Amino acid sequence: LGHFEDFGSMMNQPIQFANAEDKQEFSKFPTKAGRRSLSRSISQSSTDSYSSAASYTDSSDDETSPRDKAQVNSHGSTDFCVKNIKQAEFGRREIEIAEQDMSALISLRKRAQGEKPLAGAKIVGCTHITAQTAVLIETLVALGAQCRWTACNIYSTQNEVAASLAEIGVAVFAWKGESEDDFWWCIDRCVNTEGWQANMILDDGGDLTHWVYKKYPSVFKKVRGIVEESVTGVHRLYQLSKAGKLCVPAMNVNDSVTKQKFDNLYCCRESILDGLKRTTDIMFGGKQVVVCGYGEVGKGCCTALKALGAIVCITEIDPICALQACMDGFRVVKLSEVIRQMDVVITCTGNKNVVSREQLDRMKNGCIVCNMGHSNTEIDVASLRSPELTWERVRSQVDHIIWPDGKRVILLAEGRLLNLSCSTVPTFVLSITATTQALALIELYNAPEGRYKQDVYLLPKKMDEYVASLHLPNFDAHLTELSDEQAKYMGLNKNGPFKPNYYRSVSL
Amino acid sequence: LGHFEDFGSMMNQPIQFANAEDKQEFSKFPTKAGRRSLSRSISQSSTDSYSSAASYTDSSDDETSPRDKAQVNSHGSTDFCVKNIKQAEFGRREIEIAEQDMSALISLRKRAQGEKPLAGAKIVGCTHITAQTAVLIETLVALGAQCRWTACNIYSTQNEVAASLAEIGVAVFAWKGESEDDFWWCIDRCVNTEGWQANMILDDGGDLTHWVYKKYPSVFKKVRGIVEESVTGVHRLYQLSKAGKLCVPAMNVNDSVTKQKFDNLYCCRESILDGLKRTTDIMFGGKQVVVCGYGEVGKGCCTALKALGAIVCITEIDPICALQACMDGFRVVKLSEVIRQMDVVITCTGNKNVVSREQLDRMKNGCIVCNMGHSNTEIDVASLRSPELTWERVRSQVDHIIWPDGKRVILLAEGRLLNLSCSTVPTFVLSITATTQALALIELYNAPEGRYKQDVYLLPKKMDEYVASLHLPNFDAHLTELSDEQAKYMGLNKNGPFKPNYYRSVSL
Amino acid sequence: LGHFEDFGSMMNQPIQFANAEDKQEFSKFPTKAGRRSLSRSISQSSTDSYSSAASYTDSSDDETSPRDKAQVNSHGSTDFCVKNIKQAEFGRREIEIAEQDMSALISLRKRAQGEKPLAGAKIVGCTHITAQTAVLIETLVALGAQCRWTACNIYSTQNEVAASLAEIGVAVFAWKGESEDDFWWCIDRCVNTEGWQANMILDDGGDLTHWVYKKYPSVFKKVRGIVEESVTGVHRLYQLSKAGKLCVPAMNVNDSVTKQKFDNLYCCRESILDGLKRTTDIMFGGKQVVVCGYGEVGKGCCTALKALGAIVCITEIDPICALQACMDGFRVVKLSEVIRQMDVVITCTGNKNVVSREQLDRMKNGCIVCNMGHSNTEIDVASLRSPELTWERVRSQVDHIIWPDGKRVILLAEGRLLNLSCSTVPTFVLSITATTQALALIELYNAPEGRYKQDVYLLPKKMDEYVASLHLPNFDAHLTELSDEQAKYMGLNKNGPFKPNYYRSVSL
Amino acid sequence: LGHFEDFGSMMNQPIQFANAEDKQEFSKFPTKAGRRSLSRSISQSSTDSYSSAASYTDSSDDETSPRDKAQVNSHGSTDFCVKNIKQAEFGRREIEIAEQDMSALISLRKRAQGEKPLAGAKIVGCTHITAQTAVLIETLVALGAQCRWTACNIYSTQNEVAASLAEIGVAVFAWKGESEDDFWWCIDRCVNTEGWQANMILDDGGDLTHWVYKKYPSVFKKVRGIVEESVTGVHRLYQLSKAGKLCVPAMNVNDSVTKQKFDNLYCCRESILDGLKRTTDIMFGGKQVVVCGYGEVGKGCCTALKALGAIVCITEIDPICALQACMDGFRVVKLSEVIRQMDVVITCTGNKNVVSREQLDRMKNGCIVCNMGHSNTEIDVASLRSPELTWERVRSQVDHIIWPDGKRVILLAEGRLLNLSCSTVPTFVLSITATTQALALIELYNAPEGRYKQDVYLLPKKMDEYVASLHLPNFDAHLTELSDEQAKYMGLNKNGPFKPNYYRSVSL
Repeated sequence: LGHFEDFGSMMNQPIQFANAEDKQEFSKFPTKAGRRSLSRSISQSSTDSYSSAASYTDSSDDETSPRDKAQVNSHGSTDFCVKNIKQAEFGRREIEIAEQDMSALISLRKRAQGEKPLAGAKIVGCTHITAQTAVLIETLVALGAQCRWTACNIYSTQNEVAASLAEIGVAVFAWKGESEDDFWWCIDRCVNTEGWQANMILDDGGDLTHWVYKKYPSVFKKVRGIVEESVTGVHRLYQLSKAGKLCVPAMNVNDSVTKQKFDNLYCCRESILDGLKRTTDIMFGGKQVVVCGYGEVGKGCCTALKALGAIVCITEIDPICALQACMDGFRVVKLSEVIRQMDVVITCTGNKNVVSREQLDRMKNGCIVCNMGHSNTEIDVASLRSPELTWERVRSQVDHIIWPDGKRVILLAEGRLLNLSCSTVPTFVLSITATTQALALIELYNAPEGRYKQDVYLLPKKMDEYVASLHLPNFDAHLTELSDEQAKYMGLNKNGPFKPNYYRSVSL
Repeated sequence: LGHFEDFGSMMNQPIQFANAEDKQEFSKFPTKAGRRSLSRSISQSSTDSYSSAASYTDSSDDETSPRDKAQVNSHGSTDFCVKNIKQAEFGRREIEIAEQDMSALISLRKRAQGEKPLAGAKIVGCTHITAQTAVLIETLVALGAQCRWTACNIYSTQNEVAASLAEIGVAVFAWKGESEDDFWWCIDRCVNTEGWQANMILDDGGDLTHWVYKKYPSVFKKVRGIVEESVTGVHRLYQLSKAGKLCVPAMNVNDSVTKQKFDNLYCCRESILDGLKRTTDIMFGGKQVVVCGYGEVGKGCCTALKALGAIVCITEIDPICALQACMDGFRVVKLSEVIRQMDVVITCTGNKNVVSREQLDRMKNGCIVCNMGHSNTEIDVASLRSPELTWERVRSQVDHIIWPDGKRVILLAEGRLLNLSCSTVPTFVLSITATTQALALIELYNAPEGRYKQDVYLLPKKMDEYVASLHLPNFDAHLTELSDEQAKYMGLNKNGPFKPNYYRSVSL
Repeated sequence: LGHFEDFGSMMNQPIQFANAEDKQEFSKFPTKAGRRSLSRSISQSSTDSYSSAASYTDSSDDETSPRDKAQVNSHGSTDFCVKNIKQAEFGRREIEIAEQDMSALISLRKRAQGEKPLAGAKIVGCTHITAQTAVLIETLVALGAQCRWTACNIYSTQNEVAASLAEIGVAVFAWKGESEDDFWWCIDRCVNTEGWQANMILDDGGDLTHWVYKKYPSVFKKVRGIVEESVTGVHRLYQLSKAGKLCVPAMNVNDSVTKQKFDNLYCCRESILDGLKRTTDIMFGGKQVVVCGYGEVGKGCCTALKALGAIVCITEIDPICALQACMDGFRVVKLSEVIRQMDVVITCTGNKNVVSREQLDRMKNGCIVCNMGHSNTEIDVASLRSPELTWERVRSQVDHIIWPDGKRVILLAEGRLLNLSCSTVPTFVLSITATTQALALIELYNAPEGRYKQDVYLLPKKMDEYVASLHLPNFDAHLTELSDEQAKYMGLNKNGPFKPNYYRSVSL
Repeated sequence: LGHFEDFGSMMNQPIQFANAEDKQEFSKFPTKAGRRSLSRSISQSSTDSYSSAASYTDSSDDETSPRDKAQVNSHGSTDFCVKNIKQAEFGRREIEIAEQDMSALISLRKRAQGEKPLAGAKIVGCTHITAQTAVLIETLVALGAQCRWTACNIYSTQNEVAASLAEIGVAVFAWKGESEDDFWWCIDRCVNTEGWQANMILDDGGDLTHWVYKKYPSVFKKVRGIVEESVTGVHRLYQLSKAGKLCVPAMNVNDSVTKQKFDNLYCCRESILDGLKRTTDIMFGGKQVVVCGYGEVGKGCCTALKALGAIVCITEIDPICALQACMDGFRVVKLSEVIRQMDVVITCTGNKNVVSREQLDRMKNGCIVCNMGHSNTEIDVASLRSPELTWERVRSQVDHIIWPDGKRVILLAEGRLLNLSCSTVPTFVLSITATTQALALIELYNAPEGRYKQDVYLLPKKMDEYVASLHLPNFDAHLTELSDEQAKYMGLNKNGPFKPNYYRSVSL
C-alpha cells in the first residue's frame, strides 16, 4: 500500500512508483482523524523474528529472478511465481505455528465448512504474505473459494510461506525484494489470467483495486465487492465514492471496533516496551518520558510505560484528550517546556514535525527519540541529515546522531514506526484482522441483492461482535446471555448487536 | 426528573406523581445504550456531607410550610419561596467554597462578562439546587440573564443555598422535603408570573418542559431553546421530536463527550471505593469482586478496585466489551460460576435482575451487594422482601439480609445507585456539567436564525472542546498549538474542532 | 499509651498525666527507625463509624460517673465498672459483626479449645476496648484464661462492648471519657484485687506495666511474661531491659512482620484515600500530590494515590528510599521546589517540622495538608496559631486556615494522624494484631523454663508465619507444601519457619 | 562462578571442572534464603545484544588459541592474553557507550581522583569481562590501583573489551570460549607474576580466592581484604569463616540493600516481559499466568505481568508471602489446581522440581514454561528428555516439547534463568554493582587496622546509602537534608546512615 503520493487524482495519473523508502513506509497519508493504518498489523520485523529460518532461506546465493525460473509444484501446477517452491515444507511449519494462535479463524473454518459459504467465490487478493495471511487464505479455500494472491509490499513476503501456498495450489505471485516492475507484474498475473475472472477483491492499500480500475475495468461487472483494510486504501475508496466512480460495494474493515482497539490501544501497549528494549536495552524505571499525543496509540504507550515505573508526561492539541491525560495522572506540557529533561521522546500524533530540529538541538545527551504514530515525518528526521551532525549506526535500527559538542541523540528506526520496525505484532492481533476480512468477504459475497450499493460500508456491528466472540475462547471467557425478559427490557435482540451501529471505536 | 413511569405517552396523561421512592431514584428509564443519567452529578448524599451545617439548618423546629410563610429579602423582594431566607449568609459560604473548585465557570464568567452574551435572556430553570448550581445560576446572571428557578428533586435542595439565591434576587421556589403538590406549585410559580416570560429553558429531567407543554404551550412562541441534561429528559425530547411535537430547538448536553467521560468512567473510578468504604469499612486488598458489565461505569469501578488489590472478574453480554475486559486483565465469567466465592458483587449494566434471587441465595456469608448501574432493579431487591428473610438495618444505607441458616448478605442503599446514595460527587465533575449547560444556553440564545431547527441537537464538538479547555488550568495543563503548517497537513482549523462531530464518547 | 513525655526516666518520675491532647495522640515518641505505632490499629473514628449505635448509647443524659454507680450483671457479679451494663445486648451485636471478619481468631479458638492452652492463666490487660478487642478477650477466655481488663486510652472505649464483656463475667474497668484519675483508678482496680493475682500481662502503651512496676512490684514474681504491642511500650521495655530492670520475659509483638506490613503498607494504602475523601470530597484524578517520606507508610499512600490518577512526587532524606521512589516512577524533589504547585501535601516521615510555616505560606489557595506519619509535629501546626491567620472549622476534622490575602489552606485533623482521625481501620487488620497477641500469650505462658529470659523478644518467625496462615482462608488462599525432597534441598522444615528469624519487615 | 559442585569441602578437593552445562549455569547452589546471585547481573545474552559487533569480531576464522599467540599492545607490553589485541578500538567504543549509563562510577572516579584512595593497591580481579566491568576496572586504575584481571566465566568475555583493557595496560587474561584448562591458566597468570603481589582480591564466584588458597596461600599475608559479589562465593567465604580458615577480612557485597533490590525486584520487573517477548512474541493481555514464588523476584514478575494485562496467580509455601500476594491482588493457588488453564508458568522459588513432569503432562497445548528463579532444576527439565517426547528447536532458546498426542509445551532456555539467557540486563543495574564493589575495595584498603577482622562483613549501611546517592543524579532526584533540629529529634547524623545496620533488603 501507499505507492502513490497523490491518490486523490489517481484515476488520471500514469502508474508510477515512488522511491524505495516509500514502499517500506505504511500508510503515509494523514487523515483528519489521525487513524492508524491497519497495515501496521504486519511488519517487516515480524517476519525477521523467525530469524534462523528466514535468514537461512533468504540468504541463498540464488540470485535468479523468480520471473526467470521455471517452477512446478508437486501437483504439476506452474500457475504461480515464488522464490523457491522447495521451501514449501518449511513454510508449512511456520503456518502451523501461526494456526496455534489463530484459533478464531480455525473455528470459523470449522463452523462454515459444511455450508461452503464461499463456494463459487473467485477471490483475488493483495496483502502482506506471511504465515498469518496464509492461515486466512487457506480458510477462504476451505470455505469454497478459489484464490489468486499477490503481495502488497515488496519487502514483507515470507518466501517459504509463499512456496507453501503455491504447493497447495494457490496461485501466488510474490517474493521478498521485488522491484517496482515485479510488483505490478505480479498484480497483473493475478488478475489477468485466462479462463478465470475474479468476483471478489481483498485489498490492502488499494494498489490491486487501482490496477483493476486502470487496466481491466470490465472485471468490475462481475465483482460483488471489495474488502479493504488499510487507511490508505479506504481513503482511496471514499475518494472514488465521492467522485461517483465506485462501481461495486466496498467494505471498510479498517474501522471495525475490534480491529481498531487491537491495532492501536492494545497493540501499542505491548509493543512500545518491546521496541524500546530490543533496540536500546533501556531500563524503564525512573525514566522521564514525554509522549506526544494522547489518542489510543498514546494511551497504550503511556499505560505500559507508567506501569513499568517511567515518569510520563504528554503533549496534546485537543483539550478533551488533554483532560483525559490529566485524569489518568499524566502532566500535560508543551514539548519545549520539558525537552531538556527528557530521557525518551515518543511521537503518537499522526501529525508532522512534532519534534523539530530546534527541540532535537535542546535534548540532553543520550535522549532516545522514536515514533509510534503515523508517518516518518512526525520527527523532523530530514533536519538531522545536515553536515554538522554525525550519524553513527550502532545497531540495526539504532542511530546515534552526534552534535559537534559530543552530545548524542539516539534515533530509532530513522523515525519510522517503531513497532513495525523494531518489535513484533502478536499473531492474536493479526487473527482479529484476518477474521474480520474473512467475514467481510462472506457477507459481501452472500448478501442479497440491494443490501449493499456502490458505496463504502463499515462492517456491520453484529459481525464486529461476532469477530470478538470468536476470539473469546482464547481467554476462556464465558459470555453471559440475556434472558428473554432482559432482552425485552433493553430492547435488544438476544444475539446482538448489543450496541448501535454508530458506536465507534475512537473514544478520544 | 423521572416522575413519570410512562414517558412515551406523557403528552396525553394527567400529571401525576409517582411514589416517594421514585423521586429519589434518578433516571429510571433504560435506554438501549444503557447510558447514565447526567443527573447523577448531584446526589442526596453530597448535600448531606456538609453535615454540620445542613443538620443545623434543617433540624430547626420550624415546621411551617414555606408556602405559608411571608418572607422578604434584604432588598425588599418577596418573589421567591424558600425554607428560611435568614440562612442566606451561611449559604453564601457554601457557594464560595464551591466556587473554589469551579474555576472554569468563574473563568467563563470573566471572559464573557464584558459582552453580556445573555443580555435579555429570561431563563427558567429546574435543576437540583445546590451550591454548585448556584455558581451556575450566578454565572448566568453575570452574563446578563434574568433567572427564575425551581428544584427538579423534592429532596436535594440545600435550603441555605436557596436562601442565598433568593437574597441576591433570583426568584427561587424550592426547599428540601417538598410534597408532590409543592413540587408542581413551585414549577408553576417559576413559569407563571406576571410581566415576565421565559425565552430559554434549562431543564433536568423534563418536568419543567412537560409542565410548560401542558399548561402554557404559548410560552414556546418566545422560547429560543431548551437545554436538557438528563437521560430521561433527553429521551422525552427525542420522543417529542419523533412525534413532530417539538416546537423549539433543544440541546442534549447529556451526551457531550466531556460530560460522559466524567460522569461515568472517572466519577465511578473515584466513587466506588468511597461508597464501599463509607458504608462497610471494607478492606479492598485480596477481596474477590465481580463487576457485572464492562461499559464505562464498569471500567471505572474495575480500575479502582484492581488498583487497591482486589481480585476482580467481570460478566458481560457484549463480546466486544468482554474482549476488552480480557485484554485489561479481568477474567470474564458467568455470574453463576463465581457467585459462591465472591466477597463483593457490583452491578453496572443498565439491565434488570442481573443479580437474581437464586444468585443471592447462593452467596456466601458476608457478601456485599451493590449497584453502580442505572435503576434499582439491577439487583432483584424485591425478591428479598419475603417472609423467610430478615432485614436488619445496621447503618444508614446498609442492610443485613439474614437467611434462615444465619447467612447474611450485606445490601447497600437497597439496590439504588451506590454513588448517589453513599458517596459524594466531586465539585469538579459538577463544574463540567454546569459549564456545558452555560455554553449551551449561550449558543442557543445567540445562534442566528436557522442554525437550529425544531430538533434535538448534540453540543457542537467545538463547544465540547471549549468546556474541556476551560478546565485544564485546574491541572496546570499546557495545551500545544498547531503551527500553520501542521494545521494544513492535518486539515484542521488551529482552534479546533480537533475531532469530527461523529466522534462520540462511548468507546464500548 | 503515650502518657509520659519522658519515658526514658519513667522509673523515677511521679506518675502524671499529660494534657488531654496527648491522650488522643497515639505513639508520640519517635524512634530512630521511625516505626509506626501498632496502636494506630484502633482509632477514635472507627468507633464513631458505628454511629447510630454509638451516639445513641453515648448521648444518654446519664452524667453520673460510672465509679459512683452500683451495677450488677445478670449473673450477680459486681466486679466491673462500665458506663451502663444495660447496653450489653447491643454490644453483643457489635461483637458478632466483628467476629465475621476475625475468622482467624475464631479458628484459633477452635483449634486450641480442646487443650485449653491458657488454663490457669490470669491475664491482666490494658488495651483499647472495642468490638475487636472483645473478640480477642473472649478467645482468651475460651482458651482457659481468666481476664481482668482496662482501657489504654481514655476516649476509645466502646461503652456497649465493655458492658457486654462485663455481662459475660470479664472484670472490665473502662468507659469512654475517663478523667486522668479514672484512668489510673481503673488500672489499679484491675491489678489490685483480692484473691486474684495476675500471671500474664497484655499491655498496649506500657501504662499498665508501669503501674505494676511502681505500685505492685511483687506481682512480677508470679508473672510469666508481658506482651506489648505499641512502639512506645516496646521502647519502654527496651529501656528497662537496658537498665537491667526488666524482671520477666517480654514479647514485642509490634515488630512482627505480618503486623508491620498490615499496619503500615497495606493499611495506609487503604486509608489515605478514605481519609481524604471523607473530609474533603476531593477528586483524586490529576491532583498534584507531594508525599514526604517513602517508607512503608509513604509507599502505601503513593501506590493508592497514583492508582487513582494523582500525579505524585516524593521527598526523602535517605538515598536508598529515594532510589526506590525513582524506580517506582515518582519524581524525588525538595519540598520547597514544588510547594507552590501542590494540591495536596502528605507527611509520612516520623520527623518533625517537615512542613514548615514558610512552606505553608507558599502553598497555593486550596492546598490540602495532612499527616499520615507519626506525631502531630510533622506539620508545624503550632506556627499556624498566630494572630494574622484565621482558622475556620468547616467540617469535623477540617479547618480552613485563612491568610490575610484570602488564601486558604485546608488542614486536616489539626495535623494529627489522618487515618486515626478521619478514616477507619479494617477489622481484618485488627484481627492480625489480636491473633498475634493471643499467640504471644500462649507462647510465653507455656514456654518451658529457660526458653525466655528477662529480656525483650520478637515473636518467633514460625509464630509470625502461623498468624499469617490463620488469615489465608479469608482469601481462599491455598498454600503449597514442600515435598520431603524439596524441604531437604532447601534445608527447611516442611512446617516452617521458611525464612530466618533475622528477616524483618522493614524493607526500606 | 559456580565451578564446584561441592563447595562445602572445597578446601580438600582436587580442582576439577564440572561439565560445560554447569559453566553456563550461574549460582547453582541454593541457600536457605533463596537469595539470588549477583552474578545474574551479567548475562551471555547481554553481550550478544551488541550483535553486529560481537558476531563480527567473534566469527573470525582465527582459531588459534590466544595462549599460542604472541601479541603486544601499542605501548609495547605483552603482559596480557586476549583473543585479538587489534579489536581494542572497537572495544573502546563499547566501553564509552557503557560509560554513558554508569555516571555514578564516573562521578566516583572524579570525586576520589584527587586523593587517589587506591594508590598502592594491587588488585587481582576475577569477574565477567564486559564493557561495564571495564568501566569499573578503569575507575580503579584512575583511583590509583594496579590491576590484573581474569574472567569468572568461560563464555561471557567480550573479546573486544578485553583487548581494550589490555591496550591501556591492564594485565588481562581472558577470552570467550576458554577451555577448563585455559580458565585456571588465566587465573594463575593473574596471580602468579614476578615482581608483583596482590594486596586486594575482587572475586565473583570464589574461584580466584579458592585458587589462591590452594596454590599461593602466602599471598594472604599481604592481602588486606577480599570483595566478593556472588551468592556462591559468599557462601564459600562463610564456610571458610565458620571453619576458622578465613585469614583476611572479606566484604559480602551481594547482600547490600541497593544491589539486592535492583538485582531482584526491579531487574526482574523489567526483564520478565523482555525475555518472554524476545523468545515467543507473546501478547500479554489476557494471558493466564502462574508465578511460583512471591519473593522479590516473583513480586517483580507479577507487577510487570499484571500491569500489561495478564491474569496472574501465584503459588507459595510461606504464609507471610502468600498473605502479601493476596493483599496485592493475586490469587494464591496450588499449581495442580490451575495447571490445565495456564498460558504461562514461571518459576521464581530457588527450589527444585517446582514444576514436575506430572504437571508438564497436564499443561494445555501451547503453554509456555520458563524459570526466573535460581538453578535450572526448578522445572524438572530432565524428565522431559524421555523417548516418548519430541524436542523441536524453533528458535534460539525456544524448544517445543511435543507429546504423543501432538500437544506442545514451549520451554524457554531449557529451564535455565530466562533473564540471563533471553533478555539483557540494563547497564544501570550493573553500575550499582560495580559502584558497590569499588567502594568496598576502597573501604577495605583504607580501613584502619582493627576495624575489620578475619570475618565476612556486610557493606556498612552508610556506604550502601552512598552507592544509592551516587545514582540519584541519573534520575535528577533531589535529596532533602535534615535540619540540625530534625537530626537531633530523629537521633540521626545528618549525613546518614539513616537506617540501622540490621535493616536489610529482604522484605519477604
